[in-house]
Amino acid sequence: MPANILGKNFKIISFGESHGECVGVVIEGCPAGLKIDLDQIQKEIDKRKPGQSALTTQRKEEDKFKILSGVFNGITTGAPICLAVFNKDVDSSKYEIIKKIPRPGHSDLPAFFKYNGFNDWRGGGRFSGRMTLNYVFAGAIAKQILEKSGIEVLAHTIQIGKIKAEKQKNEDIRKNKERTLVRCADLKAAEKMENLILEIKEQGDSVGGIIECLILNPPVGLGEPVFNSLESELAKAMFSIPAVKGIDFGAGFGVAELKGSENNDEFFLEQGKISTKTNNSGGILGGISNGMPIVFRIAVKPTPSIAKPQQTINLETKKQEYLKLEGRHDPCIIPRAVPVMESMAAVVLTDLGISGGFIPKVFRK
Amino acid sequence: MPANILGKNFKIISFGESHGECVGVVIEGCPAGLKIDLDQIQKEIDKRKPGQSALTTQRKEEDKFKILSGVFNGITTGAPICLAVFNKDVDSSKYEIIKKIPRPGHSDLPAFFKYNGFNDWRGGGRFSGRMTLNYVFAGAIAKQILEKSGIEVLAHTIQIGKIKAEKQKNEDIRKNKERTLVRCADLKAAEKMENLILEIKEQGDSVGGIIECLILNPPVGLGEPVFNSLESELAKAMFSIPAVKGIDFGAGFGVAELKGSENNDEFFLEQGKISTKTNNSGGILGGISNGMPIVFRIAVKPTPSIAKPQQTINLETKKQEYLKLEGRHDPCIIPRAVPVMESMAAVVLTDLGISGGFIPKVFRK
Amino acid sequence: MPANILGKNFKIISFGESHGECVGVVIEGCPAGLKIDLDQIQKEIDKRKPGQSALTTQRKEEDKFKILSGVFNGITTGAPICLAVFNKDVDSSKYEIIKKIPRPGHSDLPAFFKYNGFNDWRGGGRFSGRMTLNYVFAGAIAKQILEKSGIEVLAHTIQIGKIKAEKQKNEDIRKNKERTLVRCADLKAAEKMENLILEIKEQGDSVGGIIECLILNPPVGLGEPVFNSLESELAKAMFSIPAVKGIDFGAGFGVAELKGSENNDEFFLEQGKISTKTNNSGGILGGISNGMPIVFRIAVKPTPSIAKPQQTINLETKKQEYLKLEGRHDPCIIPRAVPVMESMAAVVLTDLGISGGFIPKVFRK
Amino acid sequence: MPANILGKNFKIISFGESHGECVGVVIEGCPAGLKIDLDQIQKEIDKRKPGQSALTTQRKEEDKFKILSGVFNGITTGAPICLAVFNKDVDSSKYEIIKKIPRPGHSDLPAFFKYNGFNDWRGGGRFSGRMTLNYVFAGAIAKQILEKSGIEVLAHTIQIGKIKAEKQKNEDIRKNKERTLVRCADLKAAEKMENLILEIKEQGDSVGGIIECLILNPPVGLGEPVFNSLESELAKAMFSIPAVKGIDFGAGFGVAELKGSENNDEFFLEQGKISTKTNNSGGILGGISNGMPIVFRIAVKPTPSIAKPQQTINLETKKQEYLKLEGRHDPCIIPRAVPVMESMAAVVLTDLGISGGFIPKVFRK
Repeated sequence: MPANILGKNFKIISFGESHGECVGVVIEGCPAGLKIDLDQIQKEIDKRKPGQSALTTQRKEEDKFKILSGVFNGITTGAPICLAVFNKDVDSSKYEIIKKIPRPGHSDLPAFFKYNGFNDWRGGGRFSGRMTLNYVFAGAIAKQILEKSGIEVLAHTIQIGKIKAEKQKNEDIRKNKERTLVRCADLKAAEKMENLILEIKEQGDSVGGIIECLILNPPVGLGEPVFNSLESELAKAMFSIPAVKGIDFGAGFGVAELKGSENNDEFFLEQGKISTKTNNSGGILGGISNGMPIVFRIAVKPTPSIAKPQQTINLETKKQEYLKLEGRHDPCIIPRAVPVMESMAAVVLTDLGISGGFIPKVFRK
Repeated sequence: MPANILGKNFKIISFGESHGECVGVVIEGCPAGLKIDLDQIQKEIDKRKPGQSALTTQRKEEDKFKILSGVFNGITTGAPICLAVFNKDVDSSKYEIIKKIPRPGHSDLPAFFKYNGFNDWRGGGRFSGRMTLNYVFAGAIAKQILEKSGIEVLAHTIQIGKIKAEKQKNEDIRKNKERTLVRCADLKAAEKMENLILEIKEQGDSVGGIIECLILNPPVGLGEPVFNSLESELAKAMFSIPAVKGIDFGAGFGVAELKGSENNDEFFLEQGKISTKTNNSGGILGGISNGMPIVFRIAVKPTPSIAKPQQTINLETKKQEYLKLEGRHDPCIIPRAVPVMESMAAVVLTDLGISGGFIPKVFRK
Repeated sequence: MPANILGKNFKIISFGESHGECVGVVIEGCPAGLKIDLDQIQKEIDKRKPGQSALTTQRKEEDKFKILSGVFNGITTGAPICLAVFNKDVDSSKYEIIKKIPRPGHSDLPAFFKYNGFNDWRGGGRFSGRMTLNYVFAGAIAKQILEKSGIEVLAHTIQIGKIKAEKQKNEDIRKNKERTLVRCADLKAAEKMENLILEIKEQGDSVGGIIECLILNPPVGLGEPVFNSLESELAKAMFSIPAVKGIDFGAGFGVAELKGSENNDEFFLEQGKISTKTNNSGGILGGISNGMPIVFRIAVKPTPSIAKPQQTINLETKKQEYLKLEGRHDPCIIPRAVPVMESMAAVVLTDLGISGGFIPKVFRK
Repeated sequence: MPANILGKNFKIISFGESHGECVGVVIEGCPAGLKIDLDQIQKEIDKRKPGQSALTTQRKEEDKFKILSGVFNGITTGAPICLAVFNKDVDSSKYEIIKKIPRPGHSDLPAFFKYNGFNDWRGGGRFSGRMTLNYVFAGAIAKQILEKSGIEVLAHTIQIGKIKAEKQKNEDIRKNKERTLVRCADLKAAEKMENLILEIKEQGDSVGGIIECLILNPPVGLGEPVFNSLESELAKAMFSIPAVKGIDFGAGFGVAELKGSENNDEFFLEQGKISTKTNNSGGILGGISNGMPIVFRIAVKPTPSIAKPQQTINLETKKQEYLKLEGRHDPCIIPRAVPVMESMAAVVLTDLGISGGFIPKVFRK
């Protein structure tokens, strides 16, 4: 089953491999007449880029993108937009081992069986985190569309290991998250998180975390029940990000312990506008946005590539073996996953926004 | 955007309304040649039925289903299967109030704006929990297909309010869950849960919980990355169940606190078969099943319909009001949501199973 | 591959069997707020109904439809609309022979092999012309939507056997086609056609023909190139009508003999509006409507069910046999295919009209 | 509505512009394990290339393709395959005029209104015949897949202007069509066609024609009724080829004049295999292949770009004007359309072949 297409009215098609010719994305359904801000795209890409600090992998990837179609004189034409980064100077030698010896926690084993050994293993191939560059491309375009409708997407780190951020005001998240290496708006927690990551790195290990995403100023009516509800579409997109193992909305898993009288968000009028006192629903009722901020979180597992030796199976000899991975891996992927989450949220919002009629199909001249 | 179709190769199309003529589902892609066990379908429906015990709503719904197409001489033909339950003796009078006065925690408000006031409000219309009958129909067929491939889907309650079940063995879950009114296999916890629900009911309130689903004996290779991964498809389907606010897989949200060396499931050989010692991945790596049991949980919010008065807005007068709901509502939807979760899991598995070539498109004579 | 869904934004899902419980259709994406004219639907159905005259089969089918969902107080709600006709007093005995002995010109043989003998053969099952009732249902709704946008769909017979109608003015087509039993607006040709059909019927044979469809007053911009062009979508829908073996647009197959200077439709201004002098393009350039009437034709083969004995194979004995069909079959299906063509054209137009933004997703109160 | 994706299980996504960076295609669902013959792809591309003879445009396009993803060590991996040709030395100056002055018979006018003037007009942009390179890319891969299943796709010219080819045997079509500049297997007719084209070219005009496509040795059971019938899918794909205005199958439009007893193909046994004496159905009954050769034709209009002056409208001045096109245009596109038709047929066959289970999803090692 072809499975590289996401969305209905703002579709993204992902192609490429980590160590192949390129990674690229085709975006279908982008409204004609959008002036594209190239610097903005590059800025988003740079947030995801490895080698930004001591906290992330020291691999260098010079990710200069190219627009291959769909934009003419700097403006979208209504035709499919193709963006790609051509890979350079890749060294796949360190990955040769995983052809035969699957890494615990990675896709290597099931991919080997699913594709009968034909899948491209270089750099993790199609399962590499590098493929999320495509998500950032698409998200960068989507954000420019959402901006025109006054919708803001804002993701930030709220937990790494056992260190949890305190709740912050939206303006503080906006102001502070990019000031810290971990993209956490609680500056104190951020410092602890940074230290934790350095410590974990020292151990040749990795650590997980939680990222929260806010969608501010959404229209009422986003989401298409019953099967393309706002939650369904966001969840589907989030689980396309490698390493994500959970998602929840509003009060999330906490709802289990709540009574209806506690969990229900009562309505009131705030300057003539219907609002809710609490936002346990995360801005979504019946799968449709109710106008309150949309709030959700994803749980991101610790990077499975670690220096510590791990037991696995040699697929050739059919014997157990210990695998000690080399290469420069991220001790914590969270900081780089923040812009990816933000991007995928923007893509889904744009898709549902066009579907719901909130975003026009052609911008006026 | 039309949004009532789920799946690709085993598609379900949901139609009907809570208090309309009927609720029904069209199932497309069911392999020809499947002998349908009608009793099994009725049994699944009865698990979801209201009025089963003091713990659930006392509304009576006589849910006798009809097969309208796709089955000939008791065997599927390859044509779309339509199943429906025709609604009887519905009394919509108690719902008339929600036309104007949206219930907190319900879809009433955003649905009113999205459909410009035209949506069918009777019994919650298309947003009613009654629509999950369609999921159970489809799931009952899907389970009969999965059974032929030796795949088992098993959901059970693991938390209600603050009461958590202890981990149980698979055979005990299978044996015990249907013995308790809350569908929890930990018999001691089940008793406490039952008492809690009765207490909450007394208060005119409701309570949430968590359900876990196991997929036992799955093939290696289920799931179609990057956008139709096993996690993406299961999550999308789960969020089509009303009241679900979170999903996580394997170690789930717990991964945030784990190190890679703790979270990675090391491979070993068990009687010649590749297995993992732990199952933090929930049986899914890179979006593809690795052969271990697939494990995931959903967080279900407390039923928003409660007897306690709640503040809301009268959409006609544009004034704040207190709403006191009448009618017989579920103090806890969890017991009835268990078969629904199981059904939707079976639907997704069947869809991906056909896509992946694990389930044939025509059964032999 | 599930294959019973047509369209994107106005989707129809067809289910049911000729001699099963019912034939039915689910319509997804119908805008909320449309007041449904039930009489209009019945009128369209009656045009397709058998037993209208001596020219069509004398089978009686009392086709009283039911709306099962999606309409509340006579107005569409935005939820899927399900319409069905429940079959009554079917007599499948005459069809029992085709279980084993496939009719030449019919789907019996490939369907037998495709579905491994499990397909429902009663009355032709899912391949029966009776399934086009579903198209008429959907078309009747679609026409009511198009009417609100001032778009008219008009099909009429232009050839039966070797008898060809002369070109008529649009107002004459509108006025005259329903006056004749063959739905041909050229009254002289119509008479000859009627006589021909009676003669053919006498012979125990059948005859084919050609139907033309006009879409009047279309907006400029309908059609979504490159793969959902107006021609692609109309053609796909037309070939879903049984017995259709060809389609062409504008000058159609005649373009082969034309020079560019003859075939190109030159533009000129007519009261400030851009128009073309000729309409060889059939109102479609580059897969998009150009504002001129959309014109296309379908070739319909003679009904394969005839009284004359024909050679075929007994699938059980694997021997050649002569098959002499009983039952009351249409000597010419064209008159009854006219409303079906019109319906499918309306369905496609509505789908593309919503996609292109020409039809709103919610009608105002 | 995004509209650049064709197919379900073997999907092609077309992007690029005639004078943009590149034209490219993403192919999704190509089975893993296919050894790709690069020379074969280049050979197919060269057949479509302009400048092959005096009969086609003298523009030179050096179409050296690149595989950007999905192939590793010369073998498909199961990941999306991206192929592209990067455009070189394009000169768009001659097209600047069509920004304001739409060409009769071209997409210029409706595209201008549809995309609000933002569409890329250079070289016809997305509506250029150059986009069919993408179809040939995809077809070249598809043909290599079909070859493994013993299915052959064979298109050839049967009419140009009023010159019609005599019916040829399949082996003669295979042998002779590439020997003639017009890809017509009737060598005498071919010569006349060549002379006609040269004459028409002299006149600054163009001419249309008809191409026939044969699919030899198809399995029984291809096609997914009711909406993805073999005819529907082929027709949809064919109308994605610019300039196509008609399609018919088997006896095609001729069925109008036939009686059922003439048109029905009687079954008989030929060496134990069920066969038909005639093939008026074009190998398709009920939308499903019956094992006989699949036969269909497309009508291709004369190239609208001609040197003769034609009346049109200046969109800026809103006045009538005469347009005299410069540049080197094809006097007859038929010879170059033959490989394009063949390619799209191969794409559809592969898609339906995978859907029907006739083509495996992974080739064995």
